[in-house]
Amino acid sequence: MVSGLMANSALGHGYLTGLLDADVTGPSIGRMYGINTPAMGNEEGLIFPAIAANELRIMTANMLLDDEEKAVMWRGIMINNAIKEFYSKVLWSDLDLLFIDMPPGTGDVPLTVYQSIPIHGIVVVTTPQDLVGMIVAKAIDMAHQMKIPILGIVENMSYMETPNKEIVYPFGKGKLDAYAAKHELDVLAKLPIDATLTQAADQGTFAKVTHPLIDEAMLLLLKKLDLLEIDE
Amino acid sequence: MVSGLMANSALGHGYLTGLLDADVTGPSIGRMYGINTPAMGNEEGLIFPAIAANELRIMTANMLLDDEEKAVMWRGIMINNAIKEFYSKVLWSDLDLLFIDMPPGTGDVPLTVYQSIPIHGIVVVTTPQDLVGMIVAKAIDMAHQMKIPILGIVENMSYMETPNKEIVYPFGKGKLDAYAAKHELDVLAKLPIDATLTQAADQGTFAKVTHPLIDEAMLLLLKKLDLLEIDE
Repeated sequence: MVSGLMANSALGHGYLTGLLDADVTGPSIGRMYGINTPAMGNEEGLIFPAIAANELRIMTANMLLDDEEKAVMWRGIMINNAIKEFYSKVLWSDLDLLFIDMPPGTGDVPLTVYQSIPIHGIVVVTTPQDLVGMIVAKAIDMAHQMKIPILGIVENMSYMETPNKEIVYPFGKGKLDAYAAKHELDVLAKLPIDATLTQAADQGTFAKVTHPLIDEAMLLLLKKLDLLEIDE
Repeated sequence: MVSGLMANSALGHGYLTGLLDADVTGPSIGRMYGINTPAMGNEEGLIFPAIAANELRIMTANMLLDDEEKAVMWRGIMINNAIKEFYSKVLWSDLDLLFIDMPPGTGDVPLTVYQSIPIHGIVVVTTPQDLVGMIVAKAIDMAHQMKIPILGIVENMSYMETPNKEIVYPFGKGKLDAYAAKHELDVLAKLPIDATLTQAADQGTFAKVTHPLIDEAMLLLLKKLDLLEIDE
Protein backbone atom coordinates (compact mmCIF):
# COMPACT_ATOMS: atom_id res chain seq x y z
CA MET A 1 0.00 0.00 0.00
CA VAL A 2 2.83 2.40 0.81
CA SER A 3 4.60 1.53 -2.44
CA GLY A 4 1.35 2.25 -4.31
CA LEU A 5 1.01 5.62 -2.59
CA MET A 6 4.61 6.45 -3.43
CA ALA A 7 4.24 5.43 -7.06
CA ASN A 8 1.05 7.50 -7.35
CA SER A 9 2.84 10.43 -5.81
CA ALA A 10 5.79 10.15 -8.21
CA LEU A 11 3.30 10.20 -11.09
CA GLY A 12 1.71 13.28 -9.57
CA HIS A 13 5.12 14.94 -9.52
CA GLY A 14 5.34 14.33 -13.26
CA TYR A 15 7.49 11.23 -13.50
CA LEU A 16 6.67 8.27 -15.75
CA THR A 17 6.51 5.58 -13.10
CA GLY A 18 6.36 1.79 -12.78
CA LEU A 19 5.50 -0.54 -9.93
CA LEU A 20 6.93 -4.05 -9.88
CA ASP A 21 5.19 -6.37 -7.40
CA ALA A 22 8.02 -8.58 -6.13
CA ASP A 23 5.70 -10.22 -3.60
CA VAL A 24 5.20 -13.05 -6.08
CA THR A 25 3.37 -15.42 -3.73
CA GLY A 26 1.23 -12.73 -2.07
CA PRO A 27 0.58 -10.27 -4.89
CA SER A 28 -1.81 -7.44 -4.10
CA ILE A 29 -0.92 -4.67 -6.54
CA GLY A 30 -3.10 -5.88 -9.43
CA ARG A 31 -6.23 -6.01 -7.32
CA MET A 32 -5.53 -2.58 -5.84
CA TYR A 33 -5.34 -1.00 -9.29
CA GLY A 34 -8.17 -2.95 -10.89
CA ILE A 35 -5.81 -4.87 -13.20
CA ASN A 36 -7.54 -8.10 -14.12
CA THR A 37 -6.37 -8.90 -17.60
CA PRO A 38 -3.50 -11.29 -18.23
CA ALA A 39 -0.11 -9.99 -19.32
CA MET A 40 0.35 -9.64 -23.07
CA GLY A 41 3.67 -10.25 -24.77
CA ASN A 42 5.26 -9.30 -28.06
CA GLU A 43 6.89 -11.54 -30.67
CA GLU A 44 10.26 -11.37 -28.93
CA GLY A 45 8.79 -12.79 -25.73
CA LEU A 46 8.85 -9.49 -23.92
CA ILE A 47 5.90 -8.58 -21.68
CA PHE A 48 3.85 -5.40 -21.77
CA PRO A 49 3.20 -3.99 -18.31
CA ALA A 50 -0.41 -3.27 -17.38
CA ILE A 51 -1.35 0.40 -17.40
CA ALA A 52 -3.51 1.58 -14.49
CA ALA A 53 -6.08 4.37 -14.67
CA ASN A 54 -3.46 6.91 -13.55
CA GLU A 55 -0.93 5.67 -16.17
CA LEU A 56 1.10 3.74 -13.60
CA ARG A 57 2.94 0.84 -15.30
CA ILE A 58 2.42 -2.37 -13.34
CA MET A 59 3.75 -5.93 -13.35
CA THR A 60 2.42 -8.42 -10.79
CA ALA A 61 2.22 -12.21 -10.58
CA ASN A 62 -1.57 -12.05 -10.79
CA MET A 63 -1.16 -11.04 -14.45
CA LEU A 64 0.09 -14.58 -15.06
CA LEU A 65 -3.00 -16.23 -13.53
CA ASP A 66 -6.39 -16.77 -15.08
CA ASP A 67 -7.99 -16.47 -11.64
CA GLU A 68 -6.69 -13.99 -9.07
CA GLU A 69 -7.80 -16.30 -6.24
CA LYS A 70 -5.41 -19.05 -7.39
CA ALA A 71 -2.35 -19.54 -5.22
CA VAL A 72 1.14 -19.10 -6.66
CA MET A 73 2.84 -22.08 -5.02
CA TRP A 74 6.41 -21.64 -6.09
CA ARG A 75 9.75 -22.57 -4.61
CA GLY A 76 12.39 -19.89 -4.06
CA ILE A 77 14.18 -20.42 -7.36
CA MET A 78 10.98 -19.97 -9.36
CA ILE A 79 10.08 -16.87 -7.37
CA ASN A 80 13.55 -15.47 -7.98
CA ASN A 81 13.38 -16.12 -11.72
CA ALA A 82 9.99 -14.45 -11.87
CA ILE A 83 11.36 -11.33 -10.18
CA LYS A 84 14.31 -11.18 -12.57
CA GLU A 85 11.97 -11.51 -15.55
CA PHE A 86 9.54 -8.93 -14.15
CA TYR A 87 12.51 -6.57 -14.31
CA SER A 88 14.38 -7.61 -17.46
CA LYS A 89 11.63 -9.00 -19.73
CA VAL A 90 8.99 -6.35 -19.11
CA LEU A 91 8.86 -3.43 -21.51
CA TRP A 92 9.20 -0.73 -18.88
CA SER A 93 10.68 1.35 -21.71
CA ASP A 94 11.32 4.96 -20.80
CA LEU A 95 10.36 5.02 -17.13
CA ASP A 96 11.75 7.74 -14.90
CA LEU A 97 11.16 5.73 -11.74
CA LEU A 98 10.45 2.09 -10.93
CA PHE A 99 9.19 1.14 -7.48
CA ILE A 100 9.56 -2.46 -6.31
CA ASP A 101 7.13 -3.73 -3.69
CA MET A 102 8.71 -6.42 -1.51
CA PRO A 103 7.23 -8.71 1.15
CA PRO A 104 8.45 -8.37 4.75
CA GLY A 105 11.43 -10.36 5.99
CA THR A 106 15.02 -10.69 4.86
CA GLY A 107 14.74 -13.80 2.73
CA ASP A 108 14.89 -14.84 -0.87
CA VAL A 109 12.92 -11.98 -2.43
CA PRO A 110 15.01 -9.05 -1.14
CA LEU A 111 18.21 -11.07 -1.75
CA THR A 112 17.19 -11.52 -5.38
CA VAL A 113 16.14 -7.90 -5.79
CA TYR A 114 19.34 -6.59 -4.22
CA GLN A 115 21.59 -8.94 -6.19
CA SER A 116 19.97 -8.77 -9.62
CA ILE A 117 18.39 -5.34 -10.01
CA PRO A 118 20.42 -2.12 -9.93
CA ILE A 119 18.47 -0.16 -7.31
CA HIS A 120 19.15 3.31 -5.99
CA GLY A 121 17.94 2.68 -2.48
CA ILE A 122 15.19 1.31 -0.27
CA VAL A 123 12.41 2.77 1.79
CA VAL A 124 11.79 0.70 4.91
CA VAL A 125 8.09 0.45 5.79
CA THR A 126 7.30 -0.35 9.40
CA THR A 127 4.39 -0.31 11.82
CA PRO A 128 4.36 0.58 15.53
CA GLN A 129 3.83 -3.08 16.43
CA ASP A 130 7.01 -4.32 14.75
CA LEU A 131 8.44 -5.39 18.09
CA VAL A 132 10.14 -2.06 18.82
CA GLY A 133 12.54 -1.94 15.98
CA MET A 134 13.78 -5.53 15.88
CA ILE A 135 12.12 -6.26 12.56
CA VAL A 136 13.19 -2.89 11.16
CA ALA A 137 16.68 -3.51 12.52
CA LYS A 138 16.91 -6.79 10.60
CA ALA A 139 15.87 -5.10 7.35
CA ILE A 140 18.41 -2.35 7.96
CA ASP A 141 21.12 -4.85 8.83
CA MET A 142 20.43 -6.66 5.55
CA ALA A 143 20.59 -3.43 3.53
CA HIS A 144 23.88 -2.49 5.16
CA GLN A 145 25.38 -5.91 4.48
CA MET A 146 24.24 -5.72 0.86
CA LYS A 147 25.47 -2.10 0.58
CA ILE A 148 22.04 -0.78 -0.43
CA PRO A 149 21.38 2.86 0.55
CA ILE A 150 18.45 3.35 2.93
CA LEU A 151 16.50 6.37 1.73
CA GLY A 152 14.29 6.55 4.80
CA ILE A 153 11.55 4.96 6.90
CA VAL A 154 7.78 5.22 6.58
CA GLU A 155 5.70 4.24 9.60
CA ASN A 156 2.33 2.87 8.56
CA MET A 157 -0.70 2.54 10.88
CA SER A 158 0.86 5.14 13.18
CA TYR A 159 -2.40 6.51 14.59
CA MET A 160 -6.01 7.05 13.65
CA GLU A 161 -8.71 9.65 13.98
CA THR A 162 -11.99 8.37 15.39
CA PRO A 163 -15.37 9.53 14.04
CA ASN A 164 -15.47 12.18 16.76
CA LYS A 165 -12.00 13.49 15.89
CA GLU A 166 -10.10 11.85 18.69
CA ILE A 167 -6.53 10.76 17.85
CA VAL A 168 -5.82 7.24 19.08
CA TYR A 169 -2.80 4.94 18.83
CA PRO A 170 -4.20 1.46 18.19
CA PHE A 171 -0.79 -0.22 18.44
CA GLY A 172 0.69 2.07 21.05
CA LYS A 173 2.85 5.06 20.32
CA GLY A 174 5.76 3.98 18.16
CA LYS A 175 9.27 4.75 19.26
CA LEU A 176 10.35 5.43 15.71
CA ASP A 177 11.81 8.91 16.16
CA ALA A 178 14.28 7.90 18.86
CA TYR A 179 15.17 4.81 16.87
CA ALA A 180 15.66 6.74 13.63
CA ALA A 181 17.74 9.43 15.32
CA LYS A 182 19.99 6.83 16.90
CA HIS A 183 20.60 5.13 13.56
CA GLU A 184 20.74 8.38 11.54
CA LEU A 185 17.77 7.48 9.38
CA ASP A 186 15.20 9.87 7.94
CA VAL A 187 11.58 9.38 8.96
CA LEU A 188 9.81 10.14 5.67
CA ALA A 189 6.22 9.91 6.92
CA LYS A 190 3.98 8.61 9.68
CA LEU A 191 0.80 7.47 8.01
CA PRO A 192 -2.47 7.20 9.89
CA ILE A 193 -4.80 4.25 9.50
CA ASP A 194 -7.39 5.31 6.96
CA ALA A 195 -10.26 3.04 5.95
CA THR A 196 -10.69 4.96 2.68
CA LEU A 197 -7.28 3.65 1.57
CA THR A 198 -8.27 0.07 2.42
CA GLN A 199 -11.54 0.50 0.56
CA ALA A 200 -9.84 1.94 -2.53
CA ALA A 201 -7.44 -1.04 -2.52
CA ASP A 202 -10.39 -3.43 -2.19
CA GLN A 203 -12.35 -1.79 -4.94
CA GLY A 204 -9.46 -1.58 -7.38
CA THR A 205 -9.53 2.22 -7.42
CA PHE A 206 -6.16 2.83 -5.82
CA ALA A 207 -5.07 4.82 -8.90
CA LYS A 208 -7.26 7.65 -7.59
CA VAL A 209 -5.58 7.77 -4.20
CA THR A 210 -2.97 10.25 -3.07
CA HIS A 211 -1.81 11.24 0.38
CA PRO A 212 -0.37 14.63 1.36
CA LEU A 213 2.15 13.06 3.77
CA ILE A 214 3.48 10.79 1.02
CA ASP A 215 3.55 13.65 -1.49
CA GLU A 216 5.76 15.53 0.96
CA ALA A 217 7.94 12.48 1.55
CA MET A 218 8.28 12.03 -2.20
CA LEU A 219 9.73 15.54 -2.58
CA LEU A 220 12.41 14.62 -0.07
CA LEU A 221 13.08 11.33 -1.87
CA LEU A 222 13.32 12.98 -5.27
CA LYS A 223 15.81 15.43 -3.82
CA LYS A 224 17.87 12.59 -2.36
CA LEU A 225 17.85 10.83 -5.71
CA ASP A 226 18.84 14.05 -7.50
CA LEU A 227 15.72 13.78 -9.61
CA LEU A 228 14.05 17.00 -8.61
CA GLU A 229 13.88 19.63 -11.32
CA ILE A 230 15.26 22.95 -10.11
CA ASP A 231 12.13 24.94 -10.86
CA GLU A 232 9.91 22.73 -8.70
CA MET B 1 0.63 -12.95 17.43
CA VAL B 2 -2.43 -15.12 16.82
CA SER B 3 -0.33 -18.28 16.94
CA GLY B 4 1.10 -17.12 20.27
CA LEU B 5 -2.37 -16.50 21.66
CA MET B 6 -3.48 -19.93 20.48
CA ALA B 7 -0.45 -21.68 21.95
CA ASN B 8 -0.98 -19.85 25.27
CA SER B 9 -4.60 -20.89 25.22
CA ALA B 10 -3.79 -24.54 24.56
CA LEU B 11 -1.43 -24.44 27.55
CA GLY B 12 -4.24 -22.95 29.61
CA HIS B 13 -6.44 -25.85 28.59
CA GLY B 14 -3.82 -28.19 30.05
CA TYR B 15 -1.92 -29.32 26.97
CA LEU B 16 1.87 -29.46 26.78
CA THR B 17 2.39 -27.15 23.85
CA GLY B 18 5.11 -26.06 21.44
CA LEU B 19 5.42 -23.16 19.02
CA LEU B 20 7.67 -23.46 15.97
CA ASP B 21 8.44 -20.15 14.28
CA ALA B 22 8.58 -21.05 10.58
CA ASP B 23 8.97 -17.39 9.63
CA VAL B 24 12.71 -17.95 9.45
CA THR B 25 13.62 -14.62 7.86
CA GLY B 26 11.19 -12.54 9.92
CA PRO B 27 11.15 -14.29 13.28
CA SER B 28 9.19 -12.56 16.03
CA ILE B 29 8.30 -15.33 18.49
CA GLY B 30 11.53 -15.20 20.53
CA ARG B 31 11.23 -11.49 21.20
CA MET B 32 7.55 -11.84 22.14
CA TYR B 33 8.34 -14.43 24.80
CA GLY B 34 11.55 -12.86 26.09
CA ILE B 35 13.71 -15.67 24.70
CA ASN B 36 17.20 -14.25 24.21
CA THR B 37 19.54 -17.12 24.84
CA PRO B 38 20.93 -19.20 22.00
CA ALA B 39 19.68 -22.70 21.36
CA MET B 40 21.51 -25.45 23.26
CA GLY B 41 22.12 -28.87 21.78
CA ASN B 42 22.90 -32.31 23.15
CA GLU B 43 25.69 -34.68 22.13
CA GLU B 44 23.63 -36.21 19.34
CA GLY B 45 23.20 -32.80 17.68
CA LEU B 46 19.58 -32.43 18.76
CA ILE B 47 18.38 -29.02 19.89
CA PHE B 48 16.58 -28.16 23.12
CA PRO B 49 13.64 -25.84 22.58
CA ALA B 50 13.53 -22.68 24.68
CA ILE B 51 11.00 -22.74 27.51
CA ALA B 52 8.97 -19.57 28.01
CA ALA B 53 7.65 -18.29 31.34
CA ASN B 54 4.36 -20.14 30.77
CA GLU B 55 6.16 -23.40 29.87
CA LEU B 56 5.57 -22.96 26.16
CA ARG B 57 8.26 -24.80 24.15
CA ILE B 58 9.67 -22.53 21.47
CA MET B 59 12.01 -22.81 18.48
CA THR B 60 12.75 -19.72 16.41
CA ALA B 61 15.55 -18.63 14.08
CA ASN B 62 16.60 -15.92 16.53
CA MET B 63 17.88 -18.70 18.81
CA LEU B 64 20.59 -19.29 16.20
CA LEU B 65 21.78 -15.66 16.22
CA ASP B 66 24.02 -13.93 18.72
CA ASP B 67 22.18 -10.66 18.06
CA GLU B 68 18.41 -10.58 17.47
CA GLU B 69 18.82 -7.52 15.23
CA LYS B 70 20.93 -9.47 12.74
CA ALA B 71 19.19 -10.35 9.50
CA VAL B 72 18.76 -13.98 8.45
CA MET B 73 19.59 -13.65 4.77
CA TRP B 74 18.91 -17.10 3.48
CA ARG B 75 17.82 -18.52 0.17
CA GLY B 76 14.76 -20.75 -0.04
CA ILE B 77 16.62 -24.03 0.28
CA MET B 78 18.34 -22.93 3.51
CA ILE B 79 15.05 -21.66 4.90
CA ASN B 80 13.40 -24.95 4.03
CA ASN B 81 16.16 -26.99 5.66
CA ALA B 82 15.90 -24.85 8.79
CA ILE B 83 12.17 -25.51 9.01
CA LYS B 84 12.66 -29.25 8.61
CA GLU B 85 15.32 -29.23 11.33
CA PHE B 86 13.20 -27.08 13.64
CA TYR B 87 10.69 -29.92 13.43
CA SER B 88 12.84 -33.05 13.30
CA LYS B 89 15.97 -32.07 15.25
CA VAL B 90 14.33 -30.24 18.13
CA LEU B 91 13.57 -32.23 21.25
CA TRP B 92 9.86 -31.43 21.34
CA SER B 93 9.57 -34.75 23.21
CA ASP B 94 6.12 -35.41 24.61
CA LEU B 95 4.15 -32.45 23.31
CA ASP B 96 0.39 -32.68 23.01
CA LEU B 97 0.21 -29.87 20.47
CA LEU B 98 2.67 -28.08 18.22
CA PHE B 99 1.70 -24.80 16.59
CA ILE B 100 3.64 -23.60 13.56
CA ASP B 101 3.70 -19.88 12.85
CA MET B 102 4.02 -19.18 9.12
CA PRO B 103 4.57 -15.94 7.19
CA PRO B 104 1.86 -14.71 4.82
CA GLY B 105 1.81 -15.81 1.19
CA THR B 106 1.77 -19.16 -0.55
CA GLY B 107 5.46 -19.60 -1.21
CA ASP B 108 8.34 -21.73 -0.06
CA VAL B 109 7.63 -21.79 3.67
CA PRO B 110 4.08 -23.19 3.58
CA LEU B 111 5.10 -25.57 0.76
CA THR B 112 7.87 -26.94 2.97
CA VAL B 113 5.65 -27.14 6.04
CA TYR B 114 2.85 -28.87 4.14
CA GLN B 115 5.19 -31.31 2.39
CA SER B 116 7.54 -32.23 5.21
CA ILE B 117 5.60 -31.99 8.48
CA PRO B 118 2.55 -34.15 9.22
CA ILE B 119 0.06 -31.46 10.22
CA HIS B 120 -3.55 -31.88 11.27
CA GLY B 121 -4.79 -28.67 9.77
CA ILE B 122 -4.33 -24.96 9.41
CA VAL B 123 -5.90 -21.87 10.88
CA VAL B 124 -6.01 -19.04 8.36
CA VAL B 125 -5.34 -15.65 9.93
CA THR B 126 -6.65 -12.66 8.06
CA THR B 127 -7.34 -8.96 8.53
CA PRO B 128 -10.21 -6.84 7.16
CA GLN B 129 -7.81 -5.12 4.75
CA ASP B 130 -6.74 -8.32 2.98
CA LEU B 131 -8.30 -7.11 -0.27
CA VAL B 132 -11.73 -8.65 0.35
CA GLY B 133 -10.77 -12.24 0.53
CA MET B 134 -8.35 -12.50 -2.36
CA ILE B 135 -5.37 -13.13 -0.12
CA VAL B 136 -7.38 -15.50 2.05
CA ALA B 137 -8.66 -17.18 -1.09
CA LYS B 138 -5.10 -17.86 -2.24
CA ALA B 139 -4.18 -19.44 1.10
CA ILE B 140 -7.31 -21.56 0.97
CA ASP B 141 -6.67 -22.57 -2.63
CA MET B 142 -3.18 -23.69 -1.63
CA ALA B 143 -4.45 -25.72 1.33
CA HIS B 144 -7.05 -27.41 -0.89
CA GLN B 145 -4.45 -28.25 -3.53
CA MET B 146 -2.12 -29.66 -0.84
CA LYS B 147 -5.05 -31.53 0.80
CA ILE B 148 -4.52 -29.81 4.16
CA PRO B 149 -7.67 -29.46 6.29
CA ILE B 150 -8.66 -25.88 7.08
CA LEU B 151 -9.72 -25.75 10.72
CA GLY B 152 -11.07 -22.23 10.54
CA ILE B 153 -10.36 -18.53 10.11
CA VAL B 154 -9.35 -15.93 12.66
CA GLU B 155 -9.82 -12.28 11.72
CA ASN B 156 -7.25 -10.09 13.39
CA MET B 157 -7.55 -6.28 13.79
CA SER B 158 -11.31 -6.58 13.27
CA TYR B 159 -12.29 -3.54 15.31
CA MET B 160 -11.16 -1.49 18.26
CA GLU B 161 -12.58 0.22 21.29
CA THR B 162 -11.57 3.87 21.69
CA PRO B 163 -10.72 5.36 25.12
CA ASN B 164 -14.34 6.58 25.39
CA LYS B 165 -15.76 3.14 24.61
CA GLU B 166 -16.68 3.75 21.01
CA ILE B 167 -16.32 0.74 18.68
CA VAL B 168 -14.57 1.69 15.44
CA TYR B 169 -13.50 -0.28 12.36
CA PRO B 170 -10.09 1.11 11.38
CA PHE B 171 -9.90 -0.97 8.20
CA GLY B 172 -13.59 -0.95 7.39
CA LYS B 173 -16.02 -3.69 8.34
CA GLY B 174 -14.72 -7.00 7.06
CA LYS B 175 -16.91 -9.15 4.88
CA LEU B 176 -15.62 -12.30 6.51
CA ASP B 177 -18.92 -13.85 7.57
CA ALA B 178 -20.41 -13.85 4.09
CA TYR B 179 -17.14 -15.11 2.68
CA ALA B 180 -16.81 -17.89 5.27
CA ALA B 181 -20.42 -19.00 4.84
CA LYS B 182 -20.01 -19.18 1.08
CA HIS B 183 -16.91 -21.36 1.41
CA GLU B 184 -18.20 -23.38 4.38
CA LEU B 185 -15.43 -22.26 6.69
CA ASP B 186 -15.70 -21.69 10.44
CA VAL B 187 -14.94 -18.21 11.75
CA LEU B 188 -13.08 -19.04 14.97
CA ALA B 189 -12.68 -15.51 16.30
CA LYS B 190 -12.70 -11.85 15.38
CA LEU B 191 -10.00 -10.21 17.41
CA PRO B 192 -10.02 -6.51 18.22
CA ILE B 193 -6.91 -4.38 17.96
CA ASP B 194 -5.51 -4.19 21.48
CA ALA B 195 -2.41 -2.16 22.29
CA THR B 196 -1.81 -4.24 25.43
CA LEU B 197 -1.08 -7.25 23.17
CA THR B 198 1.39 -5.23 21.11
CA GLN B 199 3.06 -3.96 24.26
CA ALA B 200 3.34 -7.46 25.76
CA ALA B 201 4.92 -8.64 22.49
CA ASP B 202 7.36 -5.71 22.56
CA GLN B 203 8.29 -6.25 26.18
CA GLY B 204 8.77 -10.00 25.87
CA THR B 205 5.94 -10.76 28.29
CA PHE B 206 3.61 -12.46 25.84
CA ALA B 207 3.63 -15.60 28.03
CA LYS B 208 1.29 -13.72 30.40
CA VAL B 209 -1.26 -12.95 27.72
CA THR B 210 -4.51 -14.75 27.13
CA HIS B 211 -7.63 -13.71 25.26
CA PRO B 212 -11.17 -14.90 26.00
CA LEU B 213 -12.09 -15.01 22.30
CA ILE B 214 -9.10 -17.23 21.51
CA ASP B 215 -9.81 -19.45 24.55
CA GLU B 216 -13.28 -20.00 23.15
CA ALA B 217 -11.92 -20.65 19.66
CA MET B 218 -9.45 -23.13 21.12
CA LEU B 219 -12.26 -25.18 22.62
CA LEU B 220 -13.78 -25.49 19.17
CA LEU B 221 -10.41 -26.41 17.67
CA LEU B 222 -9.71 -29.04 20.32
CA LYS B 223 -13.11 -30.55 19.60
CA LYS B 224 -12.38 -30.62 15.89
CA LEU B 225 -9.05 -32.32 16.54
CA ASP B 226 -10.69 -34.85 18.87
CA LEU B 227 -8.40 -33.70 21.64
CA LEU B 228 -10.99 -32.48 24.08
CA GLU B 229 -11.34 -34.56 27.22
CA ILE B 230 -14.95 -35.57 27.80
CA ASP B 231 -15.17 -34.02 31.27
CA GLU B 232 -14.15 -30.59 30.08
